Amino acid sequence: MGITLRQFEELKQRVNGPKRSAVPVFEASNSVGQSKRHQVILGVDPSLRGTGFGVIRLARPTPQLLAQGTVKCSATWERSRCLVRIAEELRAVIKQHKPTICIIEALFYAQNLQTALLMGEARGASLLVAAEAGLEIFELAPRKVKQAIVGYGGAQKSAVARMVQRMLRLAQLPTPDAADALALALTHAQETARFSLTPAKRI
Amino acid sequence: MGITLRQFEELKQRVNGPKRSAVPVFEASNSVGQSKRHQVILGVDPSLRGTGFGVIRLARPTPQLLAQGTVKCSATWERSRCLVRIAEELRAVIKQHKPTICIIEALFYAQNLQTALLMGEARGASLLVAAEAGLEIFELAPRKVKQAIVGYGGAQKSAVARMVQRMLRLAQLPTPDAADALALALTHAQETARFSLTPAKRI
Repeated sequence: MGITLRQFEELKQRVNGPKRSAVPVFEASNSVGQSKRHQVILGVDPSLRGTGFGVIRLARPTPQLLAQGTVKCSATWERSRCLVRIAEELRAVIKQHKPTICIIEALFYAQNLQTALLMGEARGASLLVAAEAGLEIFELAPRKVKQAIVGYGGAQKSAVARMVQRMLRLAQLPTPDAADALALALTHAQETARFSLTPAKRI
Repeated sequence: MGITLRQFEELKQRVNGPKRSAVPVFEASNSVGQSKRHQVILGVDPSLRGTGFGVIRLARPTPQLLAQGTVKCSATWERSRCLVRIAEELRAVIKQHKPTICIIEALFYAQNLQTALLMGEARGASLLVAAEAGLEIFELAPRKVKQAIVGYGGAQKSAVARMVQRMLRLAQLPTPDAADALALALTHAQETARFSLTPAKRI
């Protein structure tokens, strides 16, 4: 019986003392370890007039809903006022539920440049709040979320909402914006619970 | 000699007491009044990797430079880290110089949706900081700024920088990003100093 490369490295390290650079620890890449470290996940689907958010706690047998909702901003409000409201509500949610991970919807399509710019502004405010609160931030494409939740990348919003309701055992169907945000959090939970070949992009 | 509608309204108000809703006060639409109330103007040209900013104080015979610079973010940084840096630096500038007005560059062109989205994120973070600090925020199109500063809407960036240097009597040519931000502030100063038919759009 020989000695594995890992065992050899460990022996070498014991002899030479710890390496100066950080070494990946086995537990950190272990799925159970990760899901334990990140038990509360915030999903955000940013939009200037209706930012959806959802917070879940990883649990067995099913994840547990902690919060969900939509930050509603009147169409008559100035854009800067909407951004302030989005920031205030997300800060309150983060303060109350203390998530350690934020999953935000990646945008790859918009009707036009102006729409992309406005969606970008809502994303910028959301990202800033999450980053200043110290959350790890990842983005997920809508298509990938639909694939993970419904099993079909082109699924309709209502199908996503129904699956989210079932996965979290909710009495009521979540509103579309909140359902999208919860779907983001649930997708990340699924991906970290098993060995993922294509990890979410950290932003 | 008759009585004007305004005089009639004023008389009616004296008889009936003040209206419950806010009425536009004459001084507020008076150019001198406005420029006195808003003596310090912050211009921001947001971009994820190089947000330009400039602060001027209205003064005679020429506006006075209070601060200028670029928030540099390494291309290797995560986007959320850039947004945090932009927010931190703008908050520090606002705290130090106490501007009451923020002029931000309006975007009407981007190479593609992804670029518009990234610019939107930087704008969102900047707008949020300015709005939370209580500044009045307006946006100006780059073409309009060039028209006001150089006299030609298609002017080159270097021409804008040279005119900004001359208008503020700076010893050195400002960097391109800072020059754009200062040009925004100077354009707003010009527009409020005279009766403007097309006021900047409040956002």
